[in-house]
Amino acid sequence: MPDDSGTQVVLSLTRLRRIRALDPANHTITVEAGVVLADVQAAARGAGLLFPLSLGAEGSCTIGGNLATNAGGTAVLRYGTMRDLTLGLEIVLPDGRVWDGLRALRKDNTGYDLKHLFIGAEGTLGVITAAVLTLFPGIRARATAWVALPSPRAAVDLIGQVRALAGDRLTTFELMSRQAVEFVLRNGNRDPFREPHPWYALVELTDTLPDSDLDSVLAAAMTGVTDAVLAAGPAQAAALRGLREGISEAQNHEGPSLKHDVTVPISDLPAFVEHTGAALRKAVPGIRLVTYGHVGDGNLHYNLSKPPGSGDAAFAARADELARIVYDATASFGGSISAEHGLGQSKTETIRDYKPTVELDLMGQVKRLLDPAGLMNPGKVVT
Amino acid sequence: MPDDSGTQVVLSLTRLRRIRALDPANHTITVEAGVVLADVQAAARGAGLLFPLSLGAEGSCTIGGNLATNAGGTAVLRYGTMRDLTLGLEIVLPDGRVWDGLRALRKDNTGYDLKHLFIGAEGTLGVITAAVLTLFPGIRARATAWVALPSPRAAVDLIGQVRALAGDRLTTFELMSRQAVEFVLRNGNRDPFREPHPWYALVELTDTLPDSDLDSVLAAAMTGVTDAVLAAGPAQAAALRGLREGISEAQNHEGPSLKHDVTVPISDLPAFVEHTGAALRKAVPGIRLVTYGHVGDGNLHYNLSKPPGSGDAAFAARADELARIVYDATASFGGSISAEHGLGQSKTETIRDYKPTVELDLMGQVKRLLDPAGLMNPGKVVT
Repeated sequence: MPDDSGTQVVLSLTRLRRIRALDPANHTITVEAGVVLADVQAAARGAGLLFPLSLGAEGSCTIGGNLATNAGGTAVLRYGTMRDLTLGLEIVLPDGRVWDGLRALRKDNTGYDLKHLFIGAEGTLGVITAAVLTLFPGIRARATAWVALPSPRAAVDLIGQVRALAGDRLTTFELMSRQAVEFVLRNGNRDPFREPHPWYALVELTDTLPDSDLDSVLAAAMTGVTDAVLAAGPAQAAALRGLREGISEAQNHEGPSLKHDVTVPISDLPAFVEHTGAALRKAVPGIRLVTYGHVGDGNLHYNLSKPPGSGDAAFAARADELARIVYDATASFGGSISAEHGLGQSKTETIRDYKPTVELDLMGQVKRLLDPAGLMNPGKVVT
Repeated sequence: MPDDSGTQVVLSLTRLRRIRALDPANHTITVEAGVVLADVQAAARGAGLLFPLSLGAEGSCTIGGNLATNAGGTAVLRYGTMRDLTLGLEIVLPDGRVWDGLRALRKDNTGYDLKHLFIGAEGTLGVITAAVLTLFPGIRARATAWVALPSPRAAVDLIGQVRALAGDRLTTFELMSRQAVEFVLRNGNRDPFREPHPWYALVELTDTLPDSDLDSVLAAAMTGVTDAVLAAGPAQAAALRGLREGISEAQNHEGPSLKHDVTVPISDLPAFVEHTGAALRKAVPGIRLVTYGHVGDGNLHYNLSKPPGSGDAAFAARADELARIVYDATASFGGSISAEHGLGQSKTETIRDYKPTVELDLMGQVKRLLDPAGLMNPGKVVT
């Protein structure tokens, strides 16, 4: 987003849209920055393989953006973030030189691994023009469960049980508060259970073996849960996933959404939820906590909606104050105030209160080293 | 290794040997740099979990060294290198400041991911004093196969077949030439087959599910192989692994070993083996090619032994010339001249012929930025 100076330009890479190579034996694909994520997924699928990055915007977002933001999404638990899926990069540096680092290698210990500087740098260190990405074996079996839980503690225990038994089969573990699900149910979705429950989890297992009995593995791991539904087929699985995927949109009908995207260690999640919830309820009695997220990664989208019947403007005006409560709590548990969403311009100042000074200094030094004239996405990430 | 100036010191971190924390629910362990790798493995095992880094020196090598060299080993195919197993670092910078980056988070998009600069930097940018490492569910089933193959092409095809079926269960795929295995057999090991075969593979599947029928999965994937043995139990599996693990030592009895550690894209492995073998045989008629390695990662330990009956000194004297043949071939396939072993001092000059100038420049700039006085492991990695 350019500032108001009239001296900034936006660089579109959407014409860099070539898939340069797909190498099934090496499990790699080489793509230009403007290729749409869904097209990479489709190319992999066409070769019987999987490109696992998956997120709501996959039909329009591009690989260059996924790299610049180190995108996460729904399968990080098993496959990692975009950083973990990248073997090599081609980059135009701020001084105009091109670094051809498009290596398709899983091991290369010949000096500093510089590509990681550019992934997640939000375009502030150079322009990524192409990348070599890793592919995985295609998925041929899937099981989906919708689980009712008494507490976040029970959810953390359940993750441990499912991981211990299912191992790498566990690709998705999403937690949702009743409040979050209630918003979605108001849009006409059906509640899989007769009674309301305080917390829900969406759990998915996948496998490369077509005859893998994932339902039995899921069922065996389900101790300590209040209730559970196993999807009988793809349609029911999609309906269960819809309850999770509909939260963000459903929240928009409830007044302003104050959104936060944090990670804490998974073990600290129950205490974080309790501590932060109490602080927010004290600050705004009646506040609705739309707590949900990729809990298998320790990542919560900790969103807030106003108390029913109160005014939009008054609630929105308290955004900074309430964010501060969420971020202070996150920091007290050793967490991150931006798990997936980056710093951009809105958090470039805020992060200075939460990151060690040494690290902020190093970031600034790296920025000035690579981009001394400050040409690349000025005003973002580093100050 | 210090130079002859008498002005360099070696810093030992072996007294930094505390395991600071083990968090089973978060699947993380926080350890100091002097902790021995086997002790980390044991601590994880004690919690029913797995720390997957595994290599020959695990009984004596330390986590600090594993991080400084971005260690690989036998399970990279599934779990990645040390870089992929690291969530956070604590580092003493060359200017004496301590960066506490010991975050135990799987997602954190709040600026540049600086830890990757230090992993694999061989101590040239600072001193790593502690790390947060990721743990995985414990392994409860294992299947091991020893396979005879007609060619590297058949090996590459087999990797594809096994991965497609077994997915993440495939943790090890090692390829060996007959020459490599013959050296081991001379030490009294038993050949699992009656007839010699030109190539062999060691394939291992693992699973978290104790009753997983991995033998059937392995058997189903074994098309296009000349012969195969499935280990009937742990003792036979250990014997088969011994054939692979004994190569390096067995080669020492055959005169000087000229060792190379390269990666190429897996798809290029057959052409690389053919091309490089022909060039070496032309340079040294009768040369023995001890070709083996972690082929599931595209990584070959491409070692050379002298022709039988020829002199040690004359062969050793040609080390640079023969390395150049191997490295030129590697580069022509887009490979790396050091997959696991780093640059150290022996390859710091050599790499200048194989890495893009832009990248070498960036490495030098980063070194001068962080360590302007050149205090950290001087003369190594960058010039």
